[in-house]
Amino acid sequence: MNYRQWVRDELRGFSKSLGFRYTPFKEIEGRISRLKTSMEDQDIEALLVVQKMDLYYLSGTTQDSVLFIPVEGRPLLLVRRELARAEIESPIEDVVGLTSIRELPALIQGHCGRLPHSLGLELDVLPVRDYARYEDLFKGSRLADASPLIRDLRRRKSPFEIELMRAAGEIGRKTFQKGGEILTEGMTEIEFGGRLETVAKGYGHEGLLRVRSLNYEAYTWHVLSGPAGGIVSQSDSPMGGLGLSPAFPVGASLRQMKAHEPILVDFGTCYHGYQADETRMFSIGTMSTKFIDAYQACREIHDAVLEETRPGADCEALFLKTLQLAKRLGYGDSYLGPHGLQTRFIGHGIGLELNEPPFLAQGHSYPLEEGMTFALEPKIVFPGEGSVGIENTVLVTRDGCEILTPLEMDILEV
Amino acid sequence: MNYRQWVRDELRGFSKSLGFRYTPFKEIEGRISRLKTSMEDQDIEALLVVQKMDLYYLSGTTQDSVLFIPVEGRPLLLVRRELARAEIESPIEDVVGLTSIRELPALIQGHCGRLPHSLGLELDVLPVRDYARYEDLFKGSRLADASPLIRDLRRRKSPFEIELMRAAGEIGRKTFQKGGEILTEGMTEIEFGGRLETVAKGYGHEGLLRVRSLNYEAYTWHVLSGPAGGIVSQSDSPMGGLGLSPAFPVGASLRQMKAHEPILVDFGTCYHGYQADETRMFSIGTMSTKFIDAYQACREIHDAVLEETRPGADCEALFLKTLQLAKRLGYGDSYLGPHGLQTRFIGHGIGLELNEPPFLAQGHSYPLEEGMTFALEPKIVFPGEGSVGIENTVLVTRDGCEILTPLEMDILEV
Repeated sequence: MNYRQWVRDELRGFSKSLGFRYTPFKEIEGRISRLKTSMEDQDIEALLVVQKMDLYYLSGTTQDSVLFIPVEGRPLLLVRRELARAEIESPIEDVVGLTSIRELPALIQGHCGRLPHSLGLELDVLPVRDYARYEDLFKGSRLADASPLIRDLRRRKSPFEIELMRAAGEIGRKTFQKGGEILTEGMTEIEFGGRLETVAKGYGHEGLLRVRSLNYEAYTWHVLSGPAGGIVSQSDSPMGGLGLSPAFPVGASLRQMKAHEPILVDFGTCYHGYQADETRMFSIGTMSTKFIDAYQACREIHDAVLEETRPGADCEALFLKTLQLAKRLGYGDSYLGPHGLQTRFIGHGIGLELNEPPFLAQGHSYPLEEGMTFALEPKIVFPGEGSVGIENTVLVTRDGCEILTPLEMDILEV
Repeated sequence: MNYRQWVRDELRGFSKSLGFRYTPFKEIEGRISRLKTSMEDQDIEALLVVQKMDLYYLSGTTQDSVLFIPVEGRPLLLVRRELARAEIESPIEDVVGLTSIRELPALIQGHCGRLPHSLGLELDVLPVRDYARYEDLFKGSRLADASPLIRDLRRRKSPFEIELMRAAGEIGRKTFQKGGEILTEGMTEIEFGGRLETVAKGYGHEGLLRVRSLNYEAYTWHVLSGPAGGIVSQSDSPMGGLGLSPAFPVGASLRQMKAHEPILVDFGTCYHGYQADETRMFSIGTMSTKFIDAYQACREIHDAVLEETRPGADCEALFLKTLQLAKRLGYGDSYLGPHGLQTRFIGHGIGLELNEPPFLAQGHSYPLEEGMTFALEPKIVFPGEGSVGIENTVLVTRDGCEILTPLEMDILEV
C-alpha cells in the first residue's frame, strides 16, 4: 500500500476515532496575528520557530519542522518528518518538505521573494551550535531573541486552551480517586507512582511533562512517603524525594510505604500538550496530628491566596503574604522546605510547559491577568519525618479564579 | 530536626538500603584523567561542564551543579542545589555551594589562583542566552566547544558502566516476560505500555530515557499494534505510531489491540542513568504469515550484523550490508520504513543517552571499538497494516560482541 495515500485517506479519521483533537484554524490565525503585532513593535521582520512547544502553539503540529513567520505575508511550515502528517495536523496553509536545513534560505526566498533583514529565534533554548548554523545561512539578517515575544504571547490562555487544561485536570481527578483503591501498605512509592501513571494514560494523559530548560526534567511519579518526603534534591521544589539513583535522585523511590505516615503525591497530567498539576495527601490509616495540622496550614495558605487571586493582584505580593501567614501559623522554618533550603515561590505558571509566567515568587512583581493559569502549591517539610502539601491548577478569571483540578481537598485516607 | 545533619548522618545508608549505587572514586578519576589528555591535545585549559548527563559521567552526581575541570589542578564541583546531597553522591573532593552563576569567576579564581585563558563548554546543547552569560563572566577567556571531547570520552564504556547497562538489560528481560502475562485482547496500546512501565519501575527502571537534543523526546511506551505500526511520525524511526494527540504523536495510542495482528513493543529501560533498548514482537494468537516471514527477515539481518560486529568493523559498511540483505530477502521497499520514508540507520550508540556514537548508519564510516555499546534494530513496515522488528543492545567485545538484553527472540505469543 502507498504510505502517503494511506495517510491522506485514513489518518484523520483513524486518529479522531482515537481521541485526537486538532487545533482549529481560527485559534492559530489569532495567535499568529497577535504575534505579528509584537514583532512589529520589536522591529523583528520574521520569526523562525524551532522549539517543539512553540511550534505546536503556533502551527498545531509537533512534527519535526520549523515555522517561518514573516510580519508581511503568510507563514510557511517546513517539515523534515513527517510531511503528510503535518499537513493533516496543522491549519497552516503553506507547508513544504525540508530535506536539509541548508535549503531554508532558498525556500524562504521562494516563499517571500527575499530574505528578512531581521530574524527572530528562540535564544533561550536554541543551542549555540545550531545558532551558528543559522548565522551562516542568514548572513544578511540581524538575528534577534524572539523568545520573550512568544513567552508573552502564550501567557494568557484562550478558551480552547483552557478546555484542554480542564480535560487534563479531569484526568487528574479520576486518577487521584483511583489512587485510593490502589494504595496498600508495603507497596513501594515507585509502584504506586507507576500505577497512577497507567491509570492516567488510560484517560488520555500523555506521560511526558514538559519544562523549558536544558537540565530540568519533569516526571509524574513524585510519590514521597515518610522520611523520603523530607529530602531536598536538585529540583527547585520544597522536597525532592529520594528517587531511584544518583542519576535520578528525585521523586518516588523503592521505599515501601507504611501505615500512619504522610504520603505526598504530586502528580501532573498532560492532555494534548496541556498540563494540570496537582498534589494531594494520602495515608494508610490516620497520620499523626503533627502532619494533619501542617496540612491544614497548607490549605489555609492555599485558600488565602485564592481569595486574592484576580486580575491586577501582584504576584510577588501574593507570595510574600504567604510567608507571613506561614510564620503566624507556626511554620516559618518548615514552610516551602527545610530551614535554609526553602524555595522562594508558591506558584508557577502552567500550560504547555511547567515554567511559564506567571510566577508567584520573590522578585516577580507584576499583575495577574485574566486567562493566566498557574499551579499553587504550599508545602511544609519536616526533615527526617516527612512532608505535606496541597496543589491545584488555577485559572485567573475576569473577577476572580477557578480551580481546574476539581478534586476534594481532604486527606485521601485508605 | 536539622536538615543537613540528617542528610550527613542518614542519607547514605537510607539510599543504599533502597538500591542506590554511587560511582566509585577510581572511575571518576580515570575519566577525568583521560579528559585532561584530550584537553591538552586541543589546547583547552579548562572545562565547565553544565549538561546533566555529562555532569553525572564526570562527577557522579546530577544535583544542580556545574563542574570546573582545569588541565592543571583539581576539579571543582559548584552546587546550586542540593549541596549536602552532592557531597554524598560525588567522589569529587572539592565541592562548594553556588548561590548565583555570577559567583563563578571568583570561586574559580579562589580555587585555581587565576581564570583560564581558554574555557570549554558544551556548545551542542548550551542555549545561546546562557552562553552570552558565560561570555560576559569570562571576558578574558577564549570559549571553545568541548562537546566533541566529552562525546569521544564517553563512547567506550568501562566495566562499571557495562555492569549498569547489563542491569538495565536484565530489567528489560523481566519486563518483557511479564508482558506475556499482562497482554489481553482489547487492552489499549497505552495501557499495555503503562503496565510494562510499572513493572520495569518495580525493578529499578528510572522511567525517563534521555536523548541529547533540543526537541527529541524519548519515552518507553512505544507499543504499536496493527495499522498503528504502519504510521511514520516526527521521530527518526522506521515507524512512529499514532500516539495520543498532535502534541504527542508517537508511541502507544488508545487503540484496542486485536488478536492475530503484530504488536511491536520497543521498550527502553534505564538503571542508574544507563539505558538498554529492546524490541520484541507480541501477538494474541498467531499473526499472519506475512508478518512472521518479515520478522524472520529482521532476525536474519540482526544476526548478519552481529556476525561481523567486532573492533575494526566499519559502521557504515555494516549498515549498507543490511540494505542489500533486506533487498535480497524481498523487503527492499519496506525495510526501515515505508518506501520513500526509510530511515538511514540500523543501530545507534546507547549509554547515558540514546544518540551517542557509534551510529551504524549512512555517512558514518568509522570503526567499531572495544567497549562501544549500540542498539541494533532492523524493522520492516507495511503501511496500513503493521510493522515488525527486533532490537537488542550490544556490547563490542575484544573479538566480537555480546548481547546485553538477553531475552529469547521468538515472537511472544499469548
